[in-house]
Amino acid sequence: MVPDPVTVFVPAHVTGFFAVYRKSEARTTGSTGAGVTLTDGVTVTVSAGERSLVLDGSAVEIPAVDSVLGELAVDAQVEASSDVPLGSGFGVSGAVALGTAFAANRYFGCERSEEELAMLAHVGDIEANTGLGDVVSQLHGGAPIRYRAGGPGIGRIDGIPDRRRIEYLTLGDLDTREVLAGDTSAITAAGESALDELRETPTLEQFWRISKRFARESGLLTSELHSIIDAVETAGGQATMGMLGETVIALETGLTDAGYDAVTTRIANGPRFVDDDRI
Amino acid sequence: MVPDPVTVFVPAHVTGFFAVYRKSEARTTGSTGAGVTLTDGVTVTVSAGERSLVLDGSAVEIPAVDSVLGELAVDAQVEASSDVPLGSGFGVSGAVALGTAFAANRYFGCERSEEELAMLAHVGDIEANTGLGDVVSQLHGGAPIRYRAGGPGIGRIDGIPDRRRIEYLTLGDLDTREVLAGDTSAITAAGESALDELRETPTLEQFWRISKRFARESGLLTSELHSIIDAVETAGGQATMGMLGETVIALETGLTDAGYDAVTTRIANGPRFVDDDRI
Repeated sequence: MVPDPVTVFVPAHVTGFFAVYRKSEARTTGSTGAGVTLTDGVTVTVSAGERSLVLDGSAVEIPAVDSVLGELAVDAQVEASSDVPLGSGFGVSGAVALGTAFAANRYFGCERSEEELAMLAHVGDIEANTGLGDVVSQLHGGAPIRYRAGGPGIGRIDGIPDRRRIEYLTLGDLDTREVLAGDTSAITAAGESALDELRETPTLEQFWRISKRFARESGLLTSELHSIIDAVETAGGQATMGMLGETVIALETGLTDAGYDAVTTRIANGPRFVDDDRI
Repeated sequence: MVPDPVTVFVPAHVTGFFAVYRKSEARTTGSTGAGVTLTDGVTVTVSAGERSLVLDGSAVEIPAVDSVLGELAVDAQVEASSDVPLGSGFGVSGAVALGTAFAANRYFGCERSEEELAMLAHVGDIEANTGLGDVVSQLHGGAPIRYRAGGPGIGRIDGIPDRRRIEYLTLGDLDTREVLAGDTSAITAAGESALDELRETPTLEQFWRISKRFARESGLLTSELHSIIDAVETAGGQATMGMLGETVIALETGLTDAGYDAVTTRIANGPRFVDDDRI
């Protein structure tokens, strides 16, 4: 008997600031920093069949997903749908990889733990240069503060104990691989000082304030995003750049209040099985 | 202006097996082991007023809650309602303390992190001898495997990546304080070997199998609970004792299939703000 497909939801993750820690192994490589996970995210369904990956109706290649299936030694049909745009700093590659790991583990009875599965997705994301801290953040949910870099069980995460409405606006793509593979020392210096300040005062308001400063100091903030953020602040709100994409995220109704046509979402919890109503 | 009350839900936690680790400090004291957190749990509302705690309509004393409010240096009215019975191994004291910490932090703007808040609840629970591993488990959600003892940020937790329907049946009270304050060396020996086996094969079926063996080997299983568990197994299901209470938990429909009138619940995620729809 062919088992029913298994579906898992993984929240999108937008990074506010980060510092890069490259080590000899992908397991210990990663980033510190902070971000928000969203009730918008990726829904991944795994079923039996020849290995394939379809995202929003189109066949795609996500190296981290291949890596996860290879490590689990299973062939699966993976169908994913995303509430958020690809390549705009929402951690979609990590989310699809993590969702595939959880769903395939249950579908095929691989008997791995949460940390083991998340480590497969983390390693896949690192090796493909598609993310550094998304997978551990998505596993944690909420508004994660990554205070020690590395994969699940190696890196350490705390969180801002708050959940609120947030808004985002995406202008286009930014190639994560190019930025992450280059010289990241200026980014890391700015990220380390931001982390200290957020740990001192772990609130959403502080997250937005120091993330915006990081975006400016790290040299990553584009002038187009800067002018949107300024407009939100003029309207009395808080906004910052979503790393690494041409994306602005605002606390509560910041973008709408400034007259932008933004997407509304909320701060999420962690991954969940969508079919957890079945026995 | 008086702010709106803040409400937080915290899942109940039922332990299947455990090993006790007492240290000189409450922060590093705790237990290893494994359990399941439930979509049944405790809902805690914090508002301004003279310090008071009402649970299901009656004024009660939960020392861990007093401890949390004292450490946050706030006076609050705490109103809690519980889906699960008190004193039957569902970690209600830890849940109310954790919910109070999260809700009071947001209500009063205490600017603490998730780990800091959960540590206050953990320390309060340890010092009152009302729990050893509930708070860190409730913070994690799902089916937590505590593989290093201690409070949040000190202890380490993995999880079984599965969420399913489960059932429970409670016969009465068991005084946690008496068992936890006594000689726990036999319990800990049985708990350590159970932990190794669950980490080898982290599935719900394995959790139930080795938890039942732990219940027998630790000497904690009463004959009344034993006969219910036997009946569930005869009907083809899996059941074990919820530590530390006169409680049986069964995977999926195990108790119903054996003819018992059980409560149906599910494996949960972690804590959440109930009012997270507001801005």
